[in-house]
Amino acid sequence: MIVVMKPGCADGDIDRIIERAHRLGLREHLSVGDERTIIGLIGDVHRVDVGAIEALPGVERVLRVGHPFKLASRAFHPEDTVVAVNGHSIGGERLAIIAGPCAVESEAGYLEAARLVKQAGADFLRGGAFKPRTSPYSFQGLRREGLRILARAREETGLPVVTEVMSPEDIPAVTEVADVLQVGARNMQNFALLAELGGCGKPVLLKRGLAASIEEWLMAAEYILANGNPRVILCERGIRTFEGYTRNTLDLSAVALAKTLTHLPVVADPSHGTGRADLVPRMCRAAVAAGSDGIMVEVHPNPAEALSDGPQSIRPDAFAELVATLRPLAAVVGRSL
Amino acid sequence: MIVVMKPGCADGDIDRIIERAHRLGLREHLSVGDERTIIGLIGDVHRVDVGAIEALPGVERVLRVGHPFKLASRAFHPEDTVVAVNGHSIGGERLAIIAGPCAVESEAGYLEAARLVKQAGADFLRGGAFKPRTSPYSFQGLRREGLRILARAREETGLPVVTEVMSPEDIPAVTEVADVLQVGARNMQNFALLAELGGCGKPVLLKRGLAASIEEWLMAAEYILANGNPRVILCERGIRTFEGYTRNTLDLSAVALAKTLTHLPVVADPSHGTGRADLVPRMCRAAVAAGSDGIMVEVHPNPAEALSDGPQSIRPDAFAELVATLRPLAAVVGRSL
Amino acid sequence: MIVVMKPGCADGDIDRIIERAHRLGLREHLSVGDERTIIGLIGDVHRVDVGAIEALPGVERVLRVGHPFKLASRAFHPEDTVVAVNGHSIGGERLAIIAGPCAVESEAGYLEAARLVKQAGADFLRGGAFKPRTSPYSFQGLRREGLRILARAREETGLPVVTEVMSPEDIPAVTEVADVLQVGARNMQNFALLAELGGCGKPVLLKRGLAASIEEWLMAAEYILANGNPRVILCERGIRTFEGYTRNTLDLSAVALAKTLTHLPVVADPSHGTGRADLVPRMCRAAVAAGSDGIMVEVHPNPAEALSDGPQSIRPDAFAELVATLRPLAAVVGRSL
Amino acid sequence: MIVVMKPGCADGDIDRIIERAHRLGLREHLSVGDERTIIGLIGDVHRVDVGAIEALPGVERVLRVGHPFKLASRAFHPEDTVVAVNGHSIGGERLAIIAGPCAVESEAGYLEAARLVKQAGADFLRGGAFKPRTSPYSFQGLRREGLRILARAREETGLPVVTEVMSPEDIPAVTEVADVLQVGARNMQNFALLAELGGCGKPVLLKRGLAASIEEWLMAAEYILANGNPRVILCERGIRTFEGYTRNTLDLSAVALAKTLTHLPVVADPSHGTGRADLVPRMCRAAVAAGSDGIMVEVHPNPAEALSDGPQSIRPDAFAELVATLRPLAAVVGRSL
Repeated sequence: MIVVMKPGCADGDIDRIIERAHRLGLREHLSVGDERTIIGLIGDVHRVDVGAIEALPGVERVLRVGHPFKLASRAFHPEDTVVAVNGHSIGGERLAIIAGPCAVESEAGYLEAARLVKQAGADFLRGGAFKPRTSPYSFQGLRREGLRILARAREETGLPVVTEVMSPEDIPAVTEVADVLQVGARNMQNFALLAELGGCGKPVLLKRGLAASIEEWLMAAEYILANGNPRVILCERGIRTFEGYTRNTLDLSAVALAKTLTHLPVVADPSHGTGRADLVPRMCRAAVAAGSDGIMVEVHPNPAEALSDGPQSIRPDAFAELVATLRPLAAVVGRSL
Repeated sequence: MIVVMKPGCADGDIDRIIERAHRLGLREHLSVGDERTIIGLIGDVHRVDVGAIEALPGVERVLRVGHPFKLASRAFHPEDTVVAVNGHSIGGERLAIIAGPCAVESEAGYLEAARLVKQAGADFLRGGAFKPRTSPYSFQGLRREGLRILARAREETGLPVVTEVMSPEDIPAVTEVADVLQVGARNMQNFALLAELGGCGKPVLLKRGLAASIEEWLMAAEYILANGNPRVILCERGIRTFEGYTRNTLDLSAVALAKTLTHLPVVADPSHGTGRADLVPRMCRAAVAAGSDGIMVEVHPNPAEALSDGPQSIRPDAFAELVATLRPLAAVVGRSL
Repeated sequence: MIVVMKPGCADGDIDRIIERAHRLGLREHLSVGDERTIIGLIGDVHRVDVGAIEALPGVERVLRVGHPFKLASRAFHPEDTVVAVNGHSIGGERLAIIAGPCAVESEAGYLEAARLVKQAGADFLRGGAFKPRTSPYSFQGLRREGLRILARAREETGLPVVTEVMSPEDIPAVTEVADVLQVGARNMQNFALLAELGGCGKPVLLKRGLAASIEEWLMAAEYILANGNPRVILCERGIRTFEGYTRNTLDLSAVALAKTLTHLPVVADPSHGTGRADLVPRMCRAAVAAGSDGIMVEVHPNPAEALSDGPQSIRPDAFAELVATLRPLAAVVGRSL
Repeated sequence: MIVVMKPGCADGDIDRIIERAHRLGLREHLSVGDERTIIGLIGDVHRVDVGAIEALPGVERVLRVGHPFKLASRAFHPEDTVVAVNGHSIGGERLAIIAGPCAVESEAGYLEAARLVKQAGADFLRGGAFKPRTSPYSFQGLRREGLRILARAREETGLPVVTEVMSPEDIPAVTEVADVLQVGARNMQNFALLAELGGCGKPVLLKRGLAASIEEWLMAAEYILANGNPRVILCERGIRTFEGYTRNTLDLSAVALAKTLTHLPVVADPSHGTGRADLVPRMCRAAVAAGSDGIMVEVHPNPAEALSDGPQSIRPDAFAELVATLRPLAAVVGRSL
C-alpha cells in the first residue's frame, strides 16, 4: 500500500500515518522527495481499509498494490481449485454442464425436464425453489415443496442439484437437499447470508452482482472462504449496461480475468447473461472458448408455459445440439465434457 | 399491456394469448392490421409478468403501458404521503435533516457526535450498528452493543434514530431501538428482508441500489407496502457509473422523477452519493433544489479517526454552516427547516 | 409504430396525429378501447422521429415496432453481405485476421512488423497513421509520412491495409493508400465524417462507440450506407462500464446479436476490448466462437517500445500460436482461416 | 508518477525505466523495499504516457499522482476564468442563462422564439444550424441558411449566439456568425475538430461526452487550450447510464467536482440532461445550487411542432417562471442573474 502525501504536509501527518501503520502490524518505508513524501506500508495489508488511511490529514491519495482479497487469490493458492460435489467436480479439466428449468413449477414438469436434460448431456441439475422476483406479485417459487421435488429429481436422475438460497434462515432446509447452494446476483453483497454460508458444509455457487466489480465479486467469495467454507464456485451472469437489446451484458472478459486472479472455478450463465434464447448457444460456446470451467443453462421442455424467464430458456433438443458442439470446442482449449 | 404479434402468426397463437389473458382476469382488445395483429390487454395488469407473455409463440414484443408498481404509484395515491416518525415526520413541507456518524464506534464518541449534530440542526440521528462492508476483514459494526448506544443517544437527545438492518433475524432487535429501519443499497433487492419488513411496524428507509433502475427501486418499495407496511421513505444514494473521480454518481434527476411517479417521500444522501466531503454541502443544496424531502449526511467530530467512510464525513461546524444555507434555499422552493 | 394516447385525450389530439401521419406518407389504424385509444402507424416508419410524435399533445408514449435502420437491416437484405477488399473479402465463410502494430512509428519497424504478422497468418495489415489520443501531448501519429509507410508495407507483403481516418479533409489522402478506412470508436457518431465516407469508394470498418447502443451503431452504419457506400464492416471493440480491471468490457453478445439484426460483417477487437495482452488470445477465441466474422489484433515485435497501447499488444510468436488455435476452433463453428 | 516494479524484477528493468525517464526529461527517485522497488518519476509528467511505461518489462503498475491536464488545471491557474463573449461574460459572479429552440427551423419561428426568450430573461441565444442526428433520415438542420437566420436574431435581440459546429471545414462559416461555438457531446473526442478550434478566435462551449470521464472532458478542453484558444466553457449535459426513464442522467456532482479541478466556467444543460420538460425547471435550480456558472435550456414556443427534441423543450412562459425562481436561489449561493 502506497500513501502519497500532499506537498508540504506537516511532519506530524507523516508520524500519524506511521503510528497507525504500527497499530495495524505494518512496517513503513519512507521515500522523501523534493516535492512530496511517499510512504510504503509493508505487511499483511489486505486487512487495511483504504478509506480510513485516506481520511487522515495530509494524505493526497492511497494506492493499493496487490489485491484486498487473500484466500481467494491465486497468489495465495497458485493451483486451480477443483470443488468436489458429491462424486462430481467443478473446476478441473472436465467442464461442468449445469442445466434445467429456471424454477421448479410442478413435480411432473420438473421430473420430466430433469430426465430430458440428463439425457441431453447435463452433469448437474439447476432449478429454483426460492425465486427472487422483482415484483411482489410474481410467482415466488414453490419453496419447501420445491425442495422436496428437487430431492426427488436428484434421486431419479442421480445428478447433483444446484439451487438458490435467499435468506440465512432457509440455509438448513436448502442444505438438506442441495448439493450446491446458489447465491443470486441480487444477494451477492448480502453479507449476513454470505457469512452464514461459511458454515453450511456444502459448496456455494456465487453469482456476480449486476454492477459488481470483479474485485467486489472476489471479496464476496472471500466472505464465504474466511467464514470457513473453501468450496466456492464463481458464476458470471451478465452485468447491467446501457444496452437495451439484451437483458444484461454477459462479461466474458471477466471470466478470463477472474481465472488469472483466483484459483476458484468460474462458470458462465448465458441464459441470464443475455436474456435471449437465440443467443444462448453461441454465448455458451464463447464462454468455453474464453476459459470458463462450465456453463449454466436454462432448459425448459415448453418455454411458453414457464412461469419465469421463458424468453431465455432453450428446449431440450436445442440443448442436446449445443452439448454436441461443445465437445470438439472443449478439446481445442484442452478441456473435455 | 400491448402484445405485438409477429407478421403472419397463426390464429392459434392469438387464441392462446386471449386464453391466457382470461386466466389472469384480463379482457382483450384486438386490432387486426394488414401486416400484424396487436392485442391490448385490459384490467389489473400490474400482476402480469411481461416475460411470461413474451415467451408465447407468435409474440414479437410485449409493451407495458403504465407501471408495474401499484401501491407505490402516485396514480393510486395522488397526495404526498407524510410518514409519521415518533412525533416527527418525513415528507411534508418541512425538510428532514438526518445526520450523524457512519457507524457507532464507541459510546462516548457517538453520544458526543449526537449532541453536536442536534445542536447544529439535525432532526434525526443516523448511525450504523450493523455495517455492510465490502471486506470481511473490515470493522463490521458493534451490532447489539451499538443498538444499546443508539438507544442511549435517542434518550439523551430526544431525536429519532435511523439505523440499518441487514438480515431478517435482526429485525426484532433493531425494531426495539430504531425509529426508522434502514435498508442499505446492497440489500435493496434482498426480497426476504423486504417482505419481513412489511410486518415490522416501523417506518423503513429504502436506499436505492447501486445499479437499480427507478422502476426496480419503486418495486422494492412495493414489496414492503404489499406486505403490510405503508411507511416507506425512499433514499437516493448514488449509482455506479464509469466515473472514477467520485465514489458514486448522485442521481438527482431520479429524486425529481421519483417525486412524480410515487407519493412516498424521497430523500438524498450526498455523503455516499459522492464519497467526498468537499462536495457534500453543494450536493445537499442541489438535492433540496431538486425537490428532495430531506437529506442524510454523515457528520463525524473527527473524520480522520472514523473506522469507516472517513473521507466522506463532514465536521459538525461544516454541518452547522450547511444547515444555515439550507434555510433560505428551502424557502425558495416552498419548504422549511 | 404504436402511439398510445393518454386516457381522456381530446379528439383533436387524435386528429392531429393522423394528420401528421398522412403528411409523413403513413396510414393509421385506430383501436378505440374503454380507457384509451391506441393508434398504429403503418408504412415506411423508419424515417419517423419518435420524439417528434411524443411531443404532440395527448400522447402518452410512442413505441417503435421494428428498427429505425433499414439498409443495414437483415429484414431488408436477408443474406450475409461479403465485403470485397482488393482480392480478399470479409464476411464470408473464411474468417478475416487483421493484425499489426497500433501505430506506424517508423518505416523499418513497421515493415518488420508487417512481415512478421503476415508470416504468422494475418490476412490484413492494421496500423494507424492518424492516431486519436486522449491527450494533446501524446504521440499523434506520423500522418502523411505514416500513409507512405503503409503503402510500402502493402507493396512488400501484398496484404490489404486497414487504417484510420479522423477527419473529412483527410479522406482523399487516406483513400489513396488504404484498402479499408477505419472509423474509430470516438468518431462513431461524427456524422460529418460518416456522411463523407459514403462517397469514398472504399470499404469502411466502423468501430462501435464506447457507450453506443447496438441500435446507434447500426444507425451509424446506416449513415454510410444511405450516403452511397454499401461496403461497411462493423467492429466491436469494448464498451465502457464500471469495471476497472479491464480498460473496456468486450461485448461479445453484441457481436452475436448484431449478426441477427444486420447482414453486414461483424469483427471483434479484443486488444482494445480488454486493454490487456494476457487476455487477448482467450478473447479472440471467444469472439470466433460467438460468431464473429474476424478478429483485429494488435501485434508489436517489441511491445515495451510501442509509442501507444503497449500493454495490449502481443508479440508475433504469441500471435502465431493464437492463429494456430483458431484454425480448429473455426472448423467447430463452420468457418475456416 | 509512481512506477511499482514486480517483486524480483531484473536490475536491467529498473535501469530501462530510469533511462526512459531521462529521455523524457524527468528525474527519478528510487525506493528499494524488501519485496519490491518503487520508482518515483519527477518533473513535467503530464506529457508522459502511462501506457508506454506500463508496457516496459518488470513493471507491475504505473500510478499517476496529479492530473494529466495542465492548462485546464486549477493548480496551474488558481483564479476562476471569466470568458468574455462579445460584451457579455460566462464564469463570473453573474449566472449565464442560455436559451432558445434546439434547432433553427424557420426564420419567422426562430425570430419569434428569440424575442420571447430574451423577454423571459435569457442572456444568450442557443439554436442549431448544423444538427447531429442519430438517424440519417432525421432533419439535419438548415445549415448555411440557419446561420443566416441566427445572425438576424442576434442583430434583432442584441443577444450573443451559441451554435454548434460539427466539422473542421465548417468552422470559418460558423465563426463568422457565432459568438460561442458549441462542440456537441458526440464530438467531444473529435480531436481533429478540437485542434482546429484552437485557432478559431471565438469562445468554445464543450459539451461532455455521453460516457466521458471528468478527466477526459478536461483533456478535451486541454486540446483546445493547448492549440491556442484560452476561452473554453464546459457544459455538463447528462451521461449514459442503465436508467431508462430519463434520456440521460444529469451528473451535477460532475459540475461541483469540475469546479474544484479546473478554473474554466462550467454550465449545465438539463434539457438534454434529462430529456423531459417536466424535470427541467427543478434540475436547473439544482444545477445552480450545485455551483454551476449558468444553465442552457431548450425553449420552444410550440414544442409539439419542434422538428427535434420536442419532449424536452419548455414553453416561454415556463421559462420566465423558472428564471424568476432562479433569482432568489442565485442569491443564496452568492451569485446573481
